[in-house]
Amino acid sequence: MSKFIKKASKTIGLAPGSLVHVGEKILDKPRVTIIDYDQEKFKEKEVKNVEECFPFKESPTITWINIDGLHDTDIISRIGNYFDIHHLFLEDIVNTSQRPKFEESDKYIFVVLKMLYFDDKEDEIKAEQVSIILGLNCVISFQEKEGDVFNPIRERIRNNKGRIRKSSANYLAYVLLDAVVDNYFTILEKMGEKIESMEDELVAHPTPKNLQIIQNLKRDMIFLRKSVWPLREIISGLQRTESNLIQDSTTIYMRDLYDHTIQVMDTIESLRDIVSGMLDIYMSSISNKMNEVMKVLTIIATIFIPITFVAGIYGMNFDSSISKLNMPELKWPFGYIFAWGIMIVIAIGMVTYFRKKRWL
Amino acid sequence: MSKFIKKASKTIGLAPGSLVHVGEKILDKPRVTIIDYDQEKFKEKEVKNVEECFPFKESPTITWINIDGLHDTDIISRIGNYFDIHHLFLEDIVNTSQRPKFEESDKYIFVVLKMLYFDDKEDEIKAEQVSIILGLNCVISFQEKEGDVFNPIRERIRNNKGRIRKSSANYLAYVLLDAVVDNYFTILEKMGEKIESMEDELVAHPTPKNLQIIQNLKRDMIFLRKSVWPLREIISGLQRTESNLIQDSTTIYMRDLYDHTIQVMDTIESLRDIVSGMLDIYMSSISNKMNEVMKVLTIIATIFIPITFVAGIYGMNFDSSISKLNMPELKWPFGYIFAWGIMIVIAIGMVTYFRKKRWL
Amino acid sequence: MSKFIKKASKTIGLAPGSLVHVGEKILDKPRVTIIDYDQEKFKEKEVKNVEECFPFKESPTITWINIDGLHDTDIISRIGNYFDIHHLFLEDIVNTSQRPKFEESDKYIFVVLKMLYFDDKEDEIKAEQVSIILGLNCVISFQEKEGDVFNPIRERIRNNKGRIRKSSANYLAYVLLDAVVDNYFTILEKMGEKIESMEDELVAHPTPKNLQIIQNLKRDMIFLRKSVWPLREIISGLQRTESNLIQDSTTIYMRDLYDHTIQVMDTIESLRDIVSGMLDIYMSSISNKMNEVMKVLTIIATIFIPITFVAGIYGMNFDSSISKLNMPELKWPFGYIFAWGIMIVIAIGMVTYFRKKRWL
Amino acid sequence: MSKFIKKASKTIGLAPGSLVHVGEKILDKPRVTIIDYDQEKFKEKEVKNVEECFPFKESPTITWINIDGLHDTDIISRIGNYFDIHHLFLEDIVNTSQRPKFEESDKYIFVVLKMLYFDDKEDEIKAEQVSIILGLNCVISFQEKEGDVFNPIRERIRNNKGRIRKSSANYLAYVLLDAVVDNYFTILEKMGEKIESMEDELVAHPTPKNLQIIQNLKRDMIFLRKSVWPLREIISGLQRTESNLIQDSTTIYMRDLYDHTIQVMDTIESLRDIVSGMLDIYMSSISNKMNEVMKVLTIIATIFIPITFVAGIYGMNFDSSISKLNMPELKWPFGYIFAWGIMIVIAIGMVTYFRKKRWL
Amino acid sequence: MSKFIKKASKTIGLAPGSLVHVGEKILDKPRVTIIDYDQEKFKEKEVKNVEECFPFKESPTITWINIDGLHDTDIISRIGNYFDIHHLFLEDIVNTSQRPKFEESDKYIFVVLKMLYFDDKEDEIKAEQVSIILGLNCVISFQEKEGDVFNPIRERIRNNKGRIRKSSANYLAYVLLDAVVDNYFTILEKMGEKIESMEDELVAHPTPKNLQIIQNLKRDMIFLRKSVWPLREIISGLQRTESNLIQDSTTIYMRDLYDHTIQVMDTIESLRDIVSGMLDIYMSSISNKMNEVMKVLTIIATIFIPITFVAGIYGMNFDSSISKLNMPELKWPFGYIFAWGIMIVIAIGMVTYFRKKRWL
Repeated sequence: MSKFIKKASKTIGLAPGSLVHVGEKILDKPRVTIIDYDQEKFKEKEVKNVEECFPFKESPTITWINIDGLHDTDIISRIGNYFDIHHLFLEDIVNTSQRPKFEESDKYIFVVLKMLYFDDKEDEIKAEQVSIILGLNCVISFQEKEGDVFNPIRERIRNNKGRIRKSSANYLAYVLLDAVVDNYFTILEKMGEKIESMEDELVAHPTPKNLQIIQNLKRDMIFLRKSVWPLREIISGLQRTESNLIQDSTTIYMRDLYDHTIQVMDTIESLRDIVSGMLDIYMSSISNKMNEVMKVLTIIATIFIPITFVAGIYGMNFDSSISKLNMPELKWPFGYIFAWGIMIVIAIGMVTYFRKKRWL
Repeated sequence: MSKFIKKASKTIGLAPGSLVHVGEKILDKPRVTIIDYDQEKFKEKEVKNVEECFPFKESPTITWINIDGLHDTDIISRIGNYFDIHHLFLEDIVNTSQRPKFEESDKYIFVVLKMLYFDDKEDEIKAEQVSIILGLNCVISFQEKEGDVFNPIRERIRNNKGRIRKSSANYLAYVLLDAVVDNYFTILEKMGEKIESMEDELVAHPTPKNLQIIQNLKRDMIFLRKSVWPLREIISGLQRTESNLIQDSTTIYMRDLYDHTIQVMDTIESLRDIVSGMLDIYMSSISNKMNEVMKVLTIIATIFIPITFVAGIYGMNFDSSISKLNMPELKWPFGYIFAWGIMIVIAIGMVTYFRKKRWL
Repeated sequence: MSKFIKKASKTIGLAPGSLVHVGEKILDKPRVTIIDYDQEKFKEKEVKNVEECFPFKESPTITWINIDGLHDTDIISRIGNYFDIHHLFLEDIVNTSQRPKFEESDKYIFVVLKMLYFDDKEDEIKAEQVSIILGLNCVISFQEKEGDVFNPIRERIRNNKGRIRKSSANYLAYVLLDAVVDNYFTILEKMGEKIESMEDELVAHPTPKNLQIIQNLKRDMIFLRKSVWPLREIISGLQRTESNLIQDSTTIYMRDLYDHTIQVMDTIESLRDIVSGMLDIYMSSISNKMNEVMKVLTIIATIFIPITFVAGIYGMNFDSSISKLNMPELKWPFGYIFAWGIMIVIAIGMVTYFRKKRWL
Repeated sequence: MSKFIKKASKTIGLAPGSLVHVGEKILDKPRVTIIDYDQEKFKEKEVKNVEECFPFKESPTITWINIDGLHDTDIISRIGNYFDIHHLFLEDIVNTSQRPKFEESDKYIFVVLKMLYFDDKEDEIKAEQVSIILGLNCVISFQEKEGDVFNPIRERIRNNKGRIRKSSANYLAYVLLDAVVDNYFTILEKMGEKIESMEDELVAHPTPKNLQIIQNLKRDMIFLRKSVWPLREIISGLQRTESNLIQDSTTIYMRDLYDHTIQVMDTIESLRDIVSGMLDIYMSSISNKMNEVMKVLTIIATIFIPITFVAGIYGMNFDSSISKLNMPELKWPFGYIFAWGIMIVIAIGMVTYFRKKRWL
Repeated sequence: MSKFIKKASKTIGLAPGSLVHVGEKILDKPRVTIIDYDQEKFKEKEVKNVEECFPFKESPTITWINIDGLHDTDIISRIGNYFDIHHLFLEDIVNTSQRPKFEESDKYIFVVLKMLYFDDKEDEIKAEQVSIILGLNCVISFQEKEGDVFNPIRERIRNNKGRIRKSSANYLAYVLLDAVVDNYFTILEKMGEKIESMEDELVAHPTPKNLQIIQNLKRDMIFLRKSVWPLREIISGLQRTESNLIQDSTTIYMRDLYDHTIQVMDTIESLRDIVSGMLDIYMSSISNKMNEVMKVLTIIATIFIPITFVAGIYGMNFDSSISKLNMPELKWPFGYIFAWGIMIVIAIGMVTYFRKKRWL
């Protein structure tokens, strides 16, 4: 459940804008890295003291500051103060239960996203909050922990591959968003495989345990949907914004990104439909098994109950010496064979009936 | 049911705008408190006579009048008259079955909200109506009973913490709304815990009583939804209003609040989906148990019915002295062991069949 | 079904605007009453001849003409002609299967509504059509039969209570609409009580008869929804109309009325959700009872089938005089007690198994 | 299925605008009739050669050309050429699988509709395509076969009843549309009656055949909905069109027609809800019957299994001559009565238990 | 599952706009064909080297370049460079998991579509991606493999049939889109036939295998919907575009195409409704069969259990020589017939009871 509602209790009763970290503390110490580049120059360093970032603010080169680890609210607050970021934005950055959102002010565009990854140990989807602040010549990104999703981007900047080094800060922001959205496809592939293998199992050997797994899949789909749905508005907002922080040339990329987001959502909806159909397969597999059990019982019972009755008849102790009407069969020379004959006729009749009814 | 439809009968047939208190009388006597402050000054007092509030209306300082208890319509009416509040607004304040709404006039912005709390005794969510009137330099709030949700705000005003003392009346109104919305998260956490513990129980030991609890959870979700849904329009209205009672600087806070409202609603929808999935778990747990019962019956019956038949055969009284064809087995030296042999073979055959069918 | 589709056959093939009464004839003779008032004067009379109303049209005082009974299309037509009402409006007034609607022309605002009442005899919700025409200084209302919903309004006019006598015709129209909408709450309370008592019964003793009642509740909810849903557009239309027949001062009342309509609809939706959940309770109560029946059968059968088999064994007639291997138990001094011992052990074993499985 | 998807294969691969008749050939030869009228004059004739219609085009009187039978694409094409109708419109007229649509050009307003009728032989709803072209002084209507829905209109024109002869061509077009929509109410009444009689049967004697009928009703509702749904846009388009082919005075009639369409759709939705509820009644009637069967089995079995066991006990052959412990009851003078006593006590105990459980 | 989520993994981490073919490699070598025409001239050739297409770019005649096979990204890239197509468009062309989309730039209109065909071998619907680029005098189309859907169009161009040779490039683009949409109707017919034959089978002989087929039909419907749904926006975009690449005269054709798209979607929705109703038929057929099995068991058991009890009674060994009360029936001359009489009366009573209950 904690996936859906994080303990927000500690923030309740506080003044709006108070910086309180909501979420797990994953890293010991936040890690701050700076990449500063333009088409010719490139500089990358990890800083111990957050103040080392500040000189880059004024430089005409593009600066990407990445902070991994959000529990040290003091660092966040110092960056916020220096870069003049609204305290409500800072509150959103450290509250990892924040809904994905998009805000723009004169100086900044602020985006909160969910990075999804599949936790193989607990066999469920988890989300990490990623916040991106786009300024005139700088991008500041905040992650809960060190991630490898942005590594290919760093590599492309270092090696001056693609358009990043030739473009301005808003293209970098787009590339970061694109990396997050692309990553959703990996999750969807994973989910697709789980669903497929689950289905084969359901058809072959449905067990009560499957039900639990179906419920977990359903919940994962709800969670996925909840994490991705707001993205639509965000990207659409970025696309239509009149802020001069987004150049016209970036708009076509944003439209492409919007398209991918829609595709992610379409796929989630399709998977949801398929997952909710799985319960029907399960329930009717159970019904089928029950039917089979009932049929076996019925066949056995309806064959043996009548012939046991016949055996019961000739087990009666009526005194045949008193009257010829009292169980004369017992005295017949072929009496025993006669009884077996009746019983065999009954059994064959029953089996024929079941054959006709297609139960056998 | 009374949660959904309050007895509105007493107001029917009355002229619109008649002040009739609809709801329970919770407090003996309404309690009126005033907090009057600006950046330097601070004054707090509880008044016996509502007229004591009136002088504060004209002062340039910000005045927050809080009324706990709505059953004394006379007090409400006197405040209404003095502050020149439309009689339809007053009717809404005392009718606690009012739907959350937002109205603005030249002089006032009027908001009706539902404060939710979890009643541990009756194990269900209850709602209390909170009305807030925002004037130029004053905020008047009405509650059904004394609540502790606004206490941290009072504390912050007293100690001049946060931005309240430095800001104007519309910020105070925002802070009150924020406190109500924040409180929803507490309720959602509570519901989340209930749902989680319920689910574990459902998987382990489903009982008919669980069904009742699931229905109650469903109803709670319907109730939550009904209480929170209109909030969206309200906050959205406050955000977009052109009234000069809301300053531009407050708009960003309103947007943040809107965001929280959306998040509350998202979570409610997710929980609704999960709760409605619980019925499926319950129904299929019941099916599984039934299946198990049927299997035990079938296994016992299909093993013993045929062998009881064999015993029945040799309980027949055909006279073997008349013909050698009449039950010769009874005269065999190993007849009894032969009979047991047949029965054991049948039993083993059945068990093997069940093993193959994976019923055992 | 007739609630949903009234026999409209008689109007088919006729020219549009033909006055044909569709509905039951409830009253013998239509009843026409006039209330004419301004702040000082008040006059009320019942007229035999509809033409007696006509002089009031020109008077500057406010005139409320109320017609009970719609089957005499001649009267409707004479009023229509004199007051210059479009013949399509007149057709709508007498066709009681008309959907609630709102039309405005230069001279009139025309509203068709459904008045709902609970028919205790047939235990279902019925609807009566109410049409209201608002002119400059007059309101004409048409009802299928004499109703008591407008009586409190008449009383208020007579006694000059509330705002009616001080306000103009559009306020009177609002008050009439308000009375109709207020009446819906009474119906909803009634439904709420029925649902609540039904639920208690479902949990205690579900019977097939309950199913029928649930279906009727469902149908009532569909009918309610269908009757109330169009109201939203109507009131919203009245609120936004630019017709000079609705004064600005009345708009706030219309907004309040709109609010009440939304609240009625919210409550209907909540009740619908609850009613559709009742089928789940019913179905699973049935499942639970079936389970219990099956368990009793299984317990009895699985205890007695094996021990009956034991009794069957010792009822066999193998000749123990031929060989010591043939049923030596029969000759044992404690044979009978031994047999009982086996049977008791089996029975206890079964009971223990069921205890372990929590079936007992 | 053919109701939902007509064989469109023959048109695939052809150039757009190719005239290919899709549908059944119902009439041998198309029938072309002309009605030409104004307030004074009236002329009606059936023409053999479609060219006979052409002179009417130029006359100032209103001309209504009605073509029954669409399979002779040559006639359609000649009319189309002379009246200068776009070839895409002609394609739509002869393709009877066309979705209802509304198009306007400078000279014409073009409407495609579905006329519904109930085929008593096949016990299902069928649709016929009706296309109406409204020109300045002429209306051209195309039907698949001769229908009687337009006959009352012809009668009214002939006898100069109603407003038709006094009005212009667009009023005639409205009257034709109104006739089609009015006809839907007849279908809905028919459906309503079928549903009602079905429901009574379901409650009394549910059989598997009912299920098939419910599915057919569902399909009929889907078909109805699909046929009527687009009408909403069409009428709404006609109402809002700025074409000078629709006079202002006709707009109020169009609004009335729109209202009827909405009412048809509301009723369809209500019936859909009711029909989908029928499956629940059916399923739970089946459950109830199954329950009853199980109860009978359980009662018989649980009464007789224990007492048969008692009979089995005293059918054992333990040798009472060997020991007094071996079945002493057999030697008791009241042994037989004692055995009956036990059996009667068991039977009464069971019946009492079932009474308590309310199974009897 | 691969229908829903194609392995997009290889593109993740790459710079946006990188040309990576996602999908199966179906053809050995891409096949490039050119058709160049105007009203008089016509030229058609297959080129080995893509550069041979380039001279046609400048010619005033209309050029249609068709590329079958997308795995050779080098060819795509060379065409893209020469025709100055945005690299994001090229990425979409080769990534066959692209969602259908519509983009316009100054020089080009770019459309991605799904061509659907029914794979008889795997008995499921498959999709092929078709991209169309419309320039001023040229249309470039990309397909995954050689298809026959465009062949009739080629034929029409060659033979100068229809309007193509007389119209400009945007009409050609429309004709291509029209061919794709027309093809959907073929798929829908196929699905309709499958559903119909499936339904007949379900009513006659439901088997667990049917369930799997129903699930596949459901999935096909989800897939269809996902493929066709975005088309609505695309065609609607083409219709409303202000680009001068689409002439006014083509707009009416686009509107017709939009209409067909809506009709495809309507039909998909109807089929979805029907398919989801099939599960209900299946489940209740299963219920009916189970009921029948239970009835047979119950009838056999409730007839034979009581009469077997009677036989058991007279199989008891009470010593009738000790007392006259001990089983005197055994000594009656008509005892045996008396016992049969009792058993026959019980059997007839049971059968009568079942008749009355309508179980026989």
